[in-house]
Amino acid sequence: MTQPSIKVGIVGGTGYTGVELLRLLSRHPNVELGLISSRSNAGLAVSEMFPSLRGFVDLEFSEPTNDALAEMDLVFFATPHATAMHQVPELLEAGCKVIDLGADFRLRDASVWKQWYNVEHSCPEWLAKAAYGLPEWHRSEIRTAQLVANPGCYPTAVSLAVLPLLKAGVIDPAQITADCKSGVSGAGRKANVATAFSEVSDSFKSYGVQGHRHLPEIQQILRLQNQAADLVFIPHLVPMIRGMQATIYLQLQKSTDVQAILEDCYKNEFFVDVMPEGQIPDTRSVRGSNFCRISATELPQNRLVLISVIDNLMKGAAGQAVQNMNLMYGFEEQTGLDHAAVLP
Amino acid sequence: MTQPSIKVGIVGGTGYTGVELLRLLSRHPNVELGLISSRSNAGLAVSEMFPSLRGFVDLEFSEPTNDALAEMDLVFFATPHATAMHQVPELLEAGCKVIDLGADFRLRDASVWKQWYNVEHSCPEWLAKAAYGLPEWHRSEIRTAQLVANPGCYPTAVSLAVLPLLKAGVIDPAQITADCKSGVSGAGRKANVATAFSEVSDSFKSYGVQGHRHLPEIQQILRLQNQAADLVFIPHLVPMIRGMQATIYLQLQKSTDVQAILEDCYKNEFFVDVMPEGQIPDTRSVRGSNFCRISATELPQNRLVLISVIDNLMKGAAGQAVQNMNLMYGFEEQTGLDHAAVLP
Amino acid sequence: MTQPSIKVGIVGGTGYTGVELLRLLSRHPNVELGLISSRSNAGLAVSEMFPSLRGFVDLEFSEPTNDALAEMDLVFFATPHATAMHQVPELLEAGCKVIDLGADFRLRDASVWKQWYNVEHSCPEWLAKAAYGLPEWHRSEIRTAQLVANPGCYPTAVSLAVLPLLKAGVIDPAQITADCKSGVSGAGRKANVATAFSEVSDSFKSYGVQGHRHLPEIQQILRLQNQAADLVFIPHLVPMIRGMQATIYLQLQKSTDVQAILEDCYKNEFFVDVMPEGQIPDTRSVRGSNFCRISATELPQNRLVLISVIDNLMKGAAGQAVQNMNLMYGFEEQTGLDHAAVLP
Amino acid sequence: MTQPSIKVGIVGGTGYTGVELLRLLSRHPNVELGLISSRSNAGLAVSEMFPSLRGFVDLEFSEPTNDALAEMDLVFFATPHATAMHQVPELLEAGCKVIDLGADFRLRDASVWKQWYNVEHSCPEWLAKAAYGLPEWHRSEIRTAQLVANPGCYPTAVSLAVLPLLKAGVIDPAQITADCKSGVSGAGRKANVATAFSEVSDSFKSYGVQGHRHLPEIQQILRLQNQAADLVFIPHLVPMIRGMQATIYLQLQKSTDVQAILEDCYKNEFFVDVMPEGQIPDTRSVRGSNFCRISATELPQNRLVLISVIDNLMKGAAGQAVQNMNLMYGFEEQTGLDHAAVLP
Repeated sequence: MTQPSIKVGIVGGTGYTGVELLRLLSRHPNVELGLISSRSNAGLAVSEMFPSLRGFVDLEFSEPTNDALAEMDLVFFATPHATAMHQVPELLEAGCKVIDLGADFRLRDASVWKQWYNVEHSCPEWLAKAAYGLPEWHRSEIRTAQLVANPGCYPTAVSLAVLPLLKAGVIDPAQITADCKSGVSGAGRKANVATAFSEVSDSFKSYGVQGHRHLPEIQQILRLQNQAADLVFIPHLVPMIRGMQATIYLQLQKSTDVQAILEDCYKNEFFVDVMPEGQIPDTRSVRGSNFCRISATELPQNRLVLISVIDNLMKGAAGQAVQNMNLMYGFEEQTGLDHAAVLP
Repeated sequence: MTQPSIKVGIVGGTGYTGVELLRLLSRHPNVELGLISSRSNAGLAVSEMFPSLRGFVDLEFSEPTNDALAEMDLVFFATPHATAMHQVPELLEAGCKVIDLGADFRLRDASVWKQWYNVEHSCPEWLAKAAYGLPEWHRSEIRTAQLVANPGCYPTAVSLAVLPLLKAGVIDPAQITADCKSGVSGAGRKANVATAFSEVSDSFKSYGVQGHRHLPEIQQILRLQNQAADLVFIPHLVPMIRGMQATIYLQLQKSTDVQAILEDCYKNEFFVDVMPEGQIPDTRSVRGSNFCRISATELPQNRLVLISVIDNLMKGAAGQAVQNMNLMYGFEEQTGLDHAAVLP
Repeated sequence: MTQPSIKVGIVGGTGYTGVELLRLLSRHPNVELGLISSRSNAGLAVSEMFPSLRGFVDLEFSEPTNDALAEMDLVFFATPHATAMHQVPELLEAGCKVIDLGADFRLRDASVWKQWYNVEHSCPEWLAKAAYGLPEWHRSEIRTAQLVANPGCYPTAVSLAVLPLLKAGVIDPAQITADCKSGVSGAGRKANVATAFSEVSDSFKSYGVQGHRHLPEIQQILRLQNQAADLVFIPHLVPMIRGMQATIYLQLQKSTDVQAILEDCYKNEFFVDVMPEGQIPDTRSVRGSNFCRISATELPQNRLVLISVIDNLMKGAAGQAVQNMNLMYGFEEQTGLDHAAVLP
Repeated sequence: MTQPSIKVGIVGGTGYTGVELLRLLSRHPNVELGLISSRSNAGLAVSEMFPSLRGFVDLEFSEPTNDALAEMDLVFFATPHATAMHQVPELLEAGCKVIDLGADFRLRDASVWKQWYNVEHSCPEWLAKAAYGLPEWHRSEIRTAQLVANPGCYPTAVSLAVLPLLKAGVIDPAQITADCKSGVSGAGRKANVATAFSEVSDSFKSYGVQGHRHLPEIQQILRLQNQAADLVFIPHLVPMIRGMQATIYLQLQKSTDVQAILEDCYKNEFFVDVMPEGQIPDTRSVRGSNFCRISATELPQNRLVLISVIDNLMKGAAGQAVQNMNLMYGFEEQTGLDHAAVLP
């Protein structure tokens, strides 16, 4: 049956994850878009800010009041950190389901959260109840969760590649180096000299070298598989709009058929694609799609290089959020996400 | 009903229009992909050349023999000019329908064709029988055609903007200046220094200043509305992958409500979007989609500027071809094309 | 002799024209950098904001007080419009020379200035005394001027191409259409969503369609040659950092040897390069250099297309300012500017 | 004295390192350009292929005959590997000096050369006599050499950062991981689908994962400092024209003042710039210039991240070659290279 069955709201509809959610949800057969909020643009037609949505989204931006949001079945928060945590508990109590695309419910430990985000968590009691929205590894919790913490983009790219090997016990968990590269849209849609075209185009740089907020999130998920797991993680900014690559350097405990472990782990997963031996993915092979493609290459001395690519706005944000929504409501997991990357 | 109803082949599947057709047709509910040809890559899995299609296209490239193609209901030719004309007549006689995305059947006059393409046309008798595949202006011919000449990208962008005003008789047909800009994918997928990243990135240039092959095509379609129509047309290369803009300078015969003429002309067209007065489209508002967005701005002294944007691989090539296919087979015109632009 | 002979200050050293001036002046043999101002960054080392200048510029940003500036021989203003006009008269009275890279002294008519910049001009008496800093056309006035209004980037690109033909009386002065394209650095170094990488990369658009502030400036300079001169001028934004192209559509009064007129006009000019017949320049051929390259192509029916390319930060701003400085102080005109474009 | 004192030839003038040499040498006060070869373009004006050099280079491309080359004092080879080795010995015997920007004389061991380049070395006797042209580490050999092997771009970026620490004995020489990123110009100026704009723009990828030819070169130079030195080296392609970054992961033997070691090592080097603690360089800070900028960041557990950026065509190729030439002829080392990066 193709009737809309749930009514959905988005808080923070003017950022890149917000507009990507709109692109996906506006054609999702089981979704009715009910509310899109933007405090500063209330009253403006969504399609005036984003002409790409002309003919697809007829709503205006509105104020993100809980009264209005409480009428939704599901609310996506596409907001900066420390925003959702103030609004979400009330909505949950009102019976809504919530998927937070921000960072507020990703870390289980409120003190770690405070250390990295410099603010006291306002509802630590919900941290343990939130499902971590990495479907390939937490599908059953997500299915029954009322609150899903959608993973960060870097944690998604790194975890999907490393977890199978960590679980299989074939790598040294203390020697994980993730050299990660992101397109500029990962920095959000903000007035900021640092992400201006003339600043980042035709250039390349590292950032967050001293410590990036996705580090504790990756550590947390890796440690779920292995207490000793630790990593060095350096993010870089690539002059491209979308796309993310994690190049991960590992030490094998012994020579192992890594390819087989990965293929076996993901053989039933539509969105995780282990490349055939010898083929290396590029980020454009997933541009605009919800796929993660992974390759493994063994080097001399039992060294291993994993390469994992995603679209940071799709599998790294909005696409994965829709995948989580599909699970939470029992829709076919690929619904609204079943399209190939846009290439070239 | 969602069963595949036609079997489709693509000749020239390794170029950008070819891979774009594959992206669209692989999820078209009424299409079964039967054959994708590439002489030089016969035997190679399509998804090995284009990993973006892993999981979407399972075929291998094959030789473009007419024996194999004749088993298709419809064959798309995504080939360089002067290729299709040698193969198409036999297929038409065998009962296939054909959409040629190349230039072979766009010009009605074989002598004009020879003048611009430097080779004798091999089947001039088919020129008059081919429908010109601009659905918004030739829908009825396309519906019944066996052979459709899919328009060039520049002619599509220019014509959709200018035709309503030419038909309404409100502009000077002898003073049409089209300053056009194209993304680099318009030059095709070829080993060519001139389109290498380090040559065209962070630069801008005109090309074909002395005369571009799309000039006679635009002239032909404009003259269908007005014998005197003529134009100056200069194409430019923009350092972007996809996207095309025509900035068109016109002289109004008198002050006129141009906005109303355009809106009225396209009020029932899904894929042609006349922007509200005062809003100017950018090319990314159509990236990856089949839309054409048009704005009109009147300047002092009855001068008029039209801005028309398309995705050169979609409305300018593969998307329009699928739209034509839908018409030829009585499918809903938007089938397989009903998605918003990818932004950012 | 290679001793520094003048002491130079820059007001507004944190924008792109400011940092480009620093690049040029830091190695100019006749210049000592005395002061670089930035109100918001006073006290910060210039090379901390612009590491590209490490080892070249040892100054810190300071407050732009007239007391400090008055100790300079020459002050460059690289400030937003309506800034210089408040500070410049006092400096001129104190005996400084001034080159304003902003718009404050470009227009002769204070009422036109007010119409386009929405503010009363604070020192209209200086408008007539300012030399318009287009050296190839106003060299003698510049040599003796105390105040030079450095031309806008679009006016430079358009004027250098059109003026010789207008002066020769071979074109219809009422039919000038300039379709102009600029790299993003022309928008300045500002926190602005509209020029964020993810907004403008891989896209193309027109802006200022209803009227851009460079229009009255171009009109003014063209009318110096011909009272009737008028034009349509539409600027566009190209996803590249530097570079500007004007594609100019003209109507010849009769068939003329345009190439000869252009070559003759500029035969003694180092920085204006008329391309050989049949060769079209691209913007990268002038990237990082002070050259303007121009081509002329005649089309049927006495139509003419001029293409003019400059680097918007060099011949369109800082490079031309240094050229003006060289004239004002009797230095060799090419000093500090005698290097080829950076290609690729 | 400013008279040209040496006559210089370039073999392979149509590639990116060739045109960059022309840009630098055309304004070098001690150099007269005598000959620029290109077999396929003999007779064509250099400035017709590279309009950026109009007014700077008046030569035509010519055949690279040894008779003509032998009249030069110095010959640069900017050719693909296995080209120079066939021509160089005769020139050396004729008394010319040679700087090879290709790979032919970089490896000392002819058997390693054969293993990586799949061809027998034609003049292994010259391998030991060639100086390795990394001036900061081999200045005295370069000064007296007749033949200089100009280092590869990756080896330059990696070695300049790692060598001081390896020499100081503070890092584990067996745990060096270099995750390297290059602009597309590093792939040369060739007709190649793999480096076409529409293939590499807005995307990111690893290449040479199984083994890149710069690996044995880096190993060789690191081992000169430490027999045990070994590394993992993965190159990546960044959608930018110029620029190279090496992100290098190291294990400190113990906590050490790395910053002091680096600063002390390079305190007298003009072209190697150790960033102040806490500042990370981006590639644009060296674009178009001959600088290498390096930062060091210590992480928990005695891990260390070095970041090293160069312009691959300058310090990574042509700029370093000119620096070597200056040394070979006793010119001031900065001559012709004393300009800041082009930013933005």
